[in-house]
Amino acid sequence: MMASATRNRGHAPSEYDEISTLFDALRDAAFDGVGISRVAYSEVESRALEMIEVEARRIGLTTERDAAANLVATLPGSDGGLPFIACGSHVDSVPQGGNFDGAAGVVAALAVLRRLKALERPLKRTVKLFALRGEESARFGKPYLGSSCLFGKLTPSDLETKAEDDGRSMGDCMRSVGVAVDRIAAREVLLEPASMAAWVELHIEQGPVLTARNLPIGIVSGIRGNIRHRAVECVGQAGHSGAVPRWLRHDAVFGMCELITHLDAHWRTLLERGHDLVLTSGIVATDPKVNAIARIPELVRFAFEIRSQSKATLDAVYELFLSECASVSRERGVSFRFDEKVEAAGATMDKMWIERLTAAAGRLNLPFETIASGAGHDAAVFANAGVPSAMVFVRNQHGSHNPREAMDLSDLIAGIDVMHAAIQEAAQ
Amino acid sequence: MMASATRNRGHAPSEYDEISTLFDALRDAAFDGVGISRVAYSEVESRALEMIEVEARRIGLTTERDAAANLVATLPGSDGGLPFIACGSHVDSVPQGGNFDGAAGVVAALAVLRRLKALERPLKRTVKLFALRGEESARFGKPYLGSSCLFGKLTPSDLETKAEDDGRSMGDCMRSVGVAVDRIAAREVLLEPASMAAWVELHIEQGPVLTARNLPIGIVSGIRGNIRHRAVECVGQAGHSGAVPRWLRHDAVFGMCELITHLDAHWRTLLERGHDLVLTSGIVATDPKVNAIARIPELVRFAFEIRSQSKATLDAVYELFLSECASVSRERGVSFRFDEKVEAAGATMDKMWIERLTAAAGRLNLPFETIASGAGHDAAVFANAGVPSAMVFVRNQHGSHNPREAMDLSDLIAGIDVMHAAIQEAAQ
Repeated sequence: MMASATRNRGHAPSEYDEISTLFDALRDAAFDGVGISRVAYSEVESRALEMIEVEARRIGLTTERDAAANLVATLPGSDGGLPFIACGSHVDSVPQGGNFDGAAGVVAALAVLRRLKALERPLKRTVKLFALRGEESARFGKPYLGSSCLFGKLTPSDLETKAEDDGRSMGDCMRSVGVAVDRIAAREVLLEPASMAAWVELHIEQGPVLTARNLPIGIVSGIRGNIRHRAVECVGQAGHSGAVPRWLRHDAVFGMCELITHLDAHWRTLLERGHDLVLTSGIVATDPKVNAIARIPELVRFAFEIRSQSKATLDAVYELFLSECASVSRERGVSFRFDEKVEAAGATMDKMWIERLTAAAGRLNLPFETIASGAGHDAAVFANAGVPSAMVFVRNQHGSHNPREAMDLSDLIAGIDVMHAAIQEAAQ
Repeated sequence: MMASATRNRGHAPSEYDEISTLFDALRDAAFDGVGISRVAYSEVESRALEMIEVEARRIGLTTERDAAANLVATLPGSDGGLPFIACGSHVDSVPQGGNFDGAAGVVAALAVLRRLKALERPLKRTVKLFALRGEESARFGKPYLGSSCLFGKLTPSDLETKAEDDGRSMGDCMRSVGVAVDRIAAREVLLEPASMAAWVELHIEQGPVLTARNLPIGIVSGIRGNIRHRAVECVGQAGHSGAVPRWLRHDAVFGMCELITHLDAHWRTLLERGHDLVLTSGIVATDPKVNAIARIPELVRFAFEIRSQSKATLDAVYELFLSECASVSRERGVSFRFDEKVEAAGATMDKMWIERLTAAAGRLNLPFETIASGAGHDAAVFANAGVPSAMVFVRNQHGSHNPREAMDLSDLIAGIDVMHAAIQEAAQ
């Protein structure tokens, strides 16, 4: 991340330099030769927390590790009885990932607390930084581990899950970095939702919207939930491609293509009517054991995913999917077989916090857009535990989960400005 | 093939029984435990020719092997100077295939010559039976070997092709069953097209049309040619399935589905306008190394095949295919990459012979339909060498190239009746 000093939007060079130095140090400690590997519940992840902790102490915050071995840094308010405001994100990455997915939010929270600490008059509310572990699902197939621990959301069977890389159980890996696994297994609530006034998380955008719109930041309206089938089968009838005329065909590929094309038309219509929706079929394949250029395909398997911030839209589009399958079946004499329907809940960001962040961006003359998060975040865990939650996205190129992530520090500082303004307002 | 005597359409029981016995003997000699394996240029194929030869001699025909080791049986006409009429088909099968694909046409030709031989007054024209080798492409990747030899159409490099099963060269395999490989390599014309008045071939239908129409036989209008791409690539851009909105997506699967659905609509329209056409995409796959349920697919590979009796339709639909690819590219920001375009010529059946077969079916009160052959046949080699060629299809269930082929002997005898009537008329 070579960022020129001219990108510094007039802030003290020291903040810009400190952020840049901290990112460099985090990168150096986790570079694997290709990208950043700061894997959940690994020593590299622990090392990152230590580096954040050193910085937090240097600027005068008190620090501790919670029972889930997350790092918590505290700036005490003058009225300790008020619910506190928390900000932060996760420090772990996917293997061969980038330096900013997660860490940017922790570095931003540290910058916010540094600015608040520097105020002449202390704030009323306590503000805490959380540097969470284990947000990425890459190692154990399950995301949000660090935040789920806070609210007693992991089960004993989760803790037995084997790691993709070395086959060790989640519980073992957690124990070796200092997690009190017995308390997690007992589903103890480590953090009372009622003790918190808010969770505010900054994260790089994992999609291309802000880049395409030429905007430094986004304010997140909600996190999309999803409904998925890993493998739907469209089943027709095999035949000689030359010898079966159209009226006698039951072509699985033509059936699937018609289905997807119909659903694409519905998608366009629903967007025009203002609904939030994305549709994807990321995996498609005829049967490689029998398919052939001159054989009418009797089977094609495809993944299907619906995402929306709205549960009502998810359910309605799923009904539409089933009814389009039925219509293609009738029309073409094919049939559809469905594997397990898997659902993941979305999360709604807090309206008052969205307004507060919006107003702050307005006062700072920062252009932004309100956008949905397609990817999941720890913020969904806080929101679904009942904590008013909010997210700020920062422009990022080339998506995430790869070493080519690219965020300008000036954009990050814009995000910090907004978050700082909103938290200061809410905490005073 | 258990066929009851009631299926015998009033013909002498001896013919029905003789045919049934011959099929049983051919099956016994080639059954592999699953299906029929009478593979090109194998000893099993030679054994089938010997069995046909024994029958041909028994009914008083003279027999010989040509330089390509095909079996030729002759019923001499009274005017030896006239071009002769040939009928027959191939004896080889795919591995684990059925007993009728090919052999039905040879058995039918034998029945026709048996009937003609029994006439009191000899015919003017000589009629010959050809029992051909190596029609199936399964062993050497190339079809019509036995008929291609007749017209000097195999090249020395064809003869070097290695067999799929035992890796021996085509030339070696041919030599070991008695082919004069040097003459084939020298591209000698073994059979002057001008010496022939016609090639008439009976074959089981390899599609479901006659069964669906409830018709015993079909008269073939022509053999469809084809244009193929083994692997077209639709290339988009990967991205997080949740985080990229529709307007920023370049989804390869949605692009391919739209392409296929557009082409399907054109297909329907072209059929309604009377054109002969079939379209197939028999192989479809996203990249298994990187595809994922939550990843927008950046690549999908698909086979594409156009078949038509008409070269003009083939070319026009290929242009349509390219222009639809261009339109989808523009609309969705994807691109298409094409591998080698492979073309195979079709063949037109002789108009006068189609009329003669049609008239014969009419006189015999046999319901039939004129249909295109989607699969290739030796008849295409004869037709493209300039020999007036014709084909009769016999109803068959479950397609071909599998042990479940199912032809009623009464349907075969209907085909023999029509072929016999037409050949007798043309030969007298």
